[in-house]
Amino acid sequence: MSENILIIGAVAVGPKAACRFKRLHQDANVTLIDQDEIISYGGCGIPYFISGDVSDESELRSTSFHMVRDERFFQDDKGVTALPGTKALKIDRKNKTVRVLEKDKTEKDIPYDKLVIGVGTRPKELNISGTTLKNVYSVGNLHDAMMIKQMVTSGQVEKAVVIGGGFIGLEMAEALADMWQIETSVVEYCDQIMPGFVSKNLSRMARHRMEGDGVSFYLGESVEAIEGTGAVVSVKTNKRSLPADLVIMAVGIGPNTDLAKDAGLDIAPGGFIVVNDHMQTSDPDIYAGGDCVQILNLITGKPGYFPLGSMANRQGRVIGTNLAGGNAVFKGAVGSFVVKTFDMALAGAGLSVETALKEGFDAVGIQVSQFDRAHFYPEKEIIYLELVVDQKTRRVLGIQGFGGENSGMFARVNAVASILQYQPTVDAISNLELAYSPPFASAMDIINALGNAAENFLDGRYMPMELDDFEQCWQKEDKDDCLFLDCRAYGDARVFEEKYPEIWKSIPHNELHQRLDEVPKDKKLVLICNTGVRSYEAQVNLRAKGFENTVSVGAGIASLKQCGMDFETDS
Amino acid sequence: MSENILIIGAVAVGPKAACRFKRLHQDANVTLIDQDEIISYGGCGIPYFISGDVSDESELRSTSFHMVRDERFFQDDKGVTALPGTKALKIDRKNKTVRVLEKDKTEKDIPYDKLVIGVGTRPKELNISGTTLKNVYSVGNLHDAMMIKQMVTSGQVEKAVVIGGGFIGLEMAEALADMWQIETSVVEYCDQIMPGFVSKNLSRMARHRMEGDGVSFYLGESVEAIEGTGAVVSVKTNKRSLPADLVIMAVGIGPNTDLAKDAGLDIAPGGFIVVNDHMQTSDPDIYAGGDCVQILNLITGKPGYFPLGSMANRQGRVIGTNLAGGNAVFKGAVGSFVVKTFDMALAGAGLSVETALKEGFDAVGIQVSQFDRAHFYPEKEIIYLELVVDQKTRRVLGIQGFGGENSGMFARVNAVASILQYQPTVDAISNLELAYSPPFASAMDIINALGNAAENFLDGRYMPMELDDFEQCWQKEDKDDCLFLDCRAYGDARVFEEKYPEIWKSIPHNELHQRLDEVPKDKKLVLICNTGVRSYEAQVNLRAKGFENTVSVGAGIASLKQCGMDFETDS
Repeated sequence: MSENILIIGAVAVGPKAACRFKRLHQDANVTLIDQDEIISYGGCGIPYFISGDVSDESELRSTSFHMVRDERFFQDDKGVTALPGTKALKIDRKNKTVRVLEKDKTEKDIPYDKLVIGVGTRPKELNISGTTLKNVYSVGNLHDAMMIKQMVTSGQVEKAVVIGGGFIGLEMAEALADMWQIETSVVEYCDQIMPGFVSKNLSRMARHRMEGDGVSFYLGESVEAIEGTGAVVSVKTNKRSLPADLVIMAVGIGPNTDLAKDAGLDIAPGGFIVVNDHMQTSDPDIYAGGDCVQILNLITGKPGYFPLGSMANRQGRVIGTNLAGGNAVFKGAVGSFVVKTFDMALAGAGLSVETALKEGFDAVGIQVSQFDRAHFYPEKEIIYLELVVDQKTRRVLGIQGFGGENSGMFARVNAVASILQYQPTVDAISNLELAYSPPFASAMDIINALGNAAENFLDGRYMPMELDDFEQCWQKEDKDDCLFLDCRAYGDARVFEEKYPEIWKSIPHNELHQRLDEVPKDKKLVLICNTGVRSYEAQVNLRAKGFENTVSVGAGIASLKQCGMDFETDS
Repeated sequence: MSENILIIGAVAVGPKAACRFKRLHQDANVTLIDQDEIISYGGCGIPYFISGDVSDESELRSTSFHMVRDERFFQDDKGVTALPGTKALKIDRKNKTVRVLEKDKTEKDIPYDKLVIGVGTRPKELNISGTTLKNVYSVGNLHDAMMIKQMVTSGQVEKAVVIGGGFIGLEMAEALADMWQIETSVVEYCDQIMPGFVSKNLSRMARHRMEGDGVSFYLGESVEAIEGTGAVVSVKTNKRSLPADLVIMAVGIGPNTDLAKDAGLDIAPGGFIVVNDHMQTSDPDIYAGGDCVQILNLITGKPGYFPLGSMANRQGRVIGTNLAGGNAVFKGAVGSFVVKTFDMALAGAGLSVETALKEGFDAVGIQVSQFDRAHFYPEKEIIYLELVVDQKTRRVLGIQGFGGENSGMFARVNAVASILQYQPTVDAISNLELAYSPPFASAMDIINALGNAAENFLDGRYMPMELDDFEQCWQKEDKDDCLFLDCRAYGDARVFEEKYPEIWKSIPHNELHQRLDEVPKDKKLVLICNTGVRSYEAQVNLRAKGFENTVSVGAGIASLKQCGMDFETDS
């Protein structure tokens, strides 16, 4: 008698597990059920469907060779029985059956030898009034997406409010503002976008970029109510009321694991299903994967949560292999991510500095800005990277970056992402060997420069000033104890010196050792240049001459501008 | 008394070592000598200077903040004494001096406490007649480059011959053909371009691309003479005579280490200087780095040779640190590279399959083609990756790829390059965690698909046919024992089936299990689709039904087309 595999949930992990297993055991029966009528779609593509980059919803449901992954596809191409519109009601582990509610509203039991749970998540709900008003959506599934797209394509939306400045919030804000010219606001409870994922500095760069294309941000504000009668009219925060024809709630996702809980499977404190590194639940005949499970964070060594389609796909394959008697392992994740913000992108892996501090590491974030390619090559752009390092052990805990969507930033983040599981120290980044030629990289690549900067910091040679500190220092009433020493060529520094003669002084780095007598000994010297190279060098030179009270503005004027800092100069 | 550091060679490794050391020991004397008048330039940028991408030679000599790195720059900005036009004649290790010939032709001895050798290489010379004719160049330094540029900008060149199809050969061929519309030929002794670096398959893709922009290739031909009286007129190979106004010899580089040899330092069999992982020669007071040294190949564990500006820069920093009493280590290299070929690029790291076989590994190369981004995302392109794996240990020995210069290929190669030193096995590639969102990657990314394909091969489930084998099979007179079974949709397969009714049969994969009776049992089945996904699936399905004699054309029709294979169909 051939084996029966039943899979609950047919979006990402389920179909992948089904198809992998079926390839290994062609004679087994595989049944894939989902309460939704639409199955096996790329949920991560929803913002691009709404923006219009993806014109038709069927494209999110198709293979790369343009076949829609419906029941017939699974039957003919994969030999898998797919039952959309079939809701799992209860798992009977003793009798190894699942009670389901079929399309025609009849209940029946489906027996299994092995069961897979891949039911995903539910959008987190805001505990406020108005969430059920018309035109208030979360982006939990393709149905919501189709309704939102219908609204925007038919010109019904002039003003939209996105609640939440994380991945989905930013992607949705871009989709609405970019292609449909909708006046879009993002309200975020934390004081930065992408909280927990990138430092404040990098988040400011992305925010500034999005503001440039008309997205408004209200940070550190909590939404108190969604208002309207029938349809939404406005969103009320603790500080203002924002008119809205459309509201997108993107405040995170929560567990969808009642089924697993009721069946007595081990559930983690956050509500997600506990699995071992074979993706097996506490019942060895039941596997689980995708957004509904908790997996190991390879940086902290603690349980983690990484709801991404890429995780689900790789976990699905591991499950498929193990269902067939294999010994595939999913070790965990370092938490790599990338999010497009118009023509730029934020990306990262591992821990942000704030998260690392919360996790108890003696963490510091070192930021570097540099061209992604040889500086003499015509096509190039400055990119921004931040390395998060544990000061005690010199271990690299994470990397984050901001840069053009087609820049070399993505390649640099990926190169570090892939080694994080090996627990590299800073010297591994200083010596990371990326492929080099001038159209692709610098001879001393930014990734190596980043490792070098971190090393110089850890060894006490480099004393950076972060952008937040710079801004505070700049905005302080009494700048009297600070001198901003501009190490750039005079042509670049002149306008600053003229505008702020009391506090800003130009000494090009190549003139420094001849003009040491012009440098005050009683002030804190804030050394600055365009990308931090010359200001670091000046710091080293000044220190050797007894000037101990210096800081170097790590990522330089380039970063300050990218963050939108306004010096009110004409340059 | 302060320390005296003397550095011979002021192109890449020397200046980096000088500046790093000087930052650590501000009170030391550092002297940088070079026999050339032009120092500290980006030699790797020469092809882009010749193409015109870099308009002026001074840009190759400048910092990112536009200061020319001349004697004055080194003095004022770095506190380093640079002496261009000063040739080192002899190292006296006993007395710790170097005899030099100064600009004014006088000889003198410069004392040192520590010495650094970074003298680079000499272009390899062809042992044929005519190499000294006018307009015959190697691209060994900026002087040659300036002369070549002068020739091309003044319209003196109609036909150029490049001898050598390696990195410099290809970059120079592109420079001449692309911007200056010069009729350019490349003569290569081996039967492929980039021999030793990429497989024949990938090399064919790059060659086909370059041929599309007018570069002609003569592979497997040896140059017997460069002909002309006074100036070059033609290049004679063993098969033909190629007219030429300009000849570029790019047949590799050789040691430039007479100085080190005469001083009695350990020299490796190939002629390069032996150093330990601190970049110290056999004399602990003498360091060496850059193109003149041999370093460890981290894949083979044997001595290796990696002449790249990026290596020189990182080695220079290690030397600088160690000169200052530090303990920096340069472990070796995995051999990452990238070369632009018009709007495409070849990149790689570790061993190519041919090199791995030569090194005694039981190596195989597994090739995959797939979109670099989500297939539903509008901006995307098919990229080609090859994973080189040891069949005994499942260890990953290398990766190579071909794809658009701004495609995701570069990021994928770098992600694997950076983990090669940790000796990953195939499952690490199957589960490599890259940053994911649809504008940047697929949910099952090509890098994971590559690992999966390799795993399926090693486990005996996937039996690929390489492009060379396909071509041989296709060109054979008696194709009678083969049937090309096209798994694509009928619309794509039709034109092939109509053109080759005897040997080409369309059975779309989703119809396969209903049409099994149409599949002959007595023929070798060559399964094919666009990228190898459906043909692999068909292979699995057919095997389960007893069809054992199948091969799947690994990288599919997409690869065949990219290689320029002509099926003479209209599709």
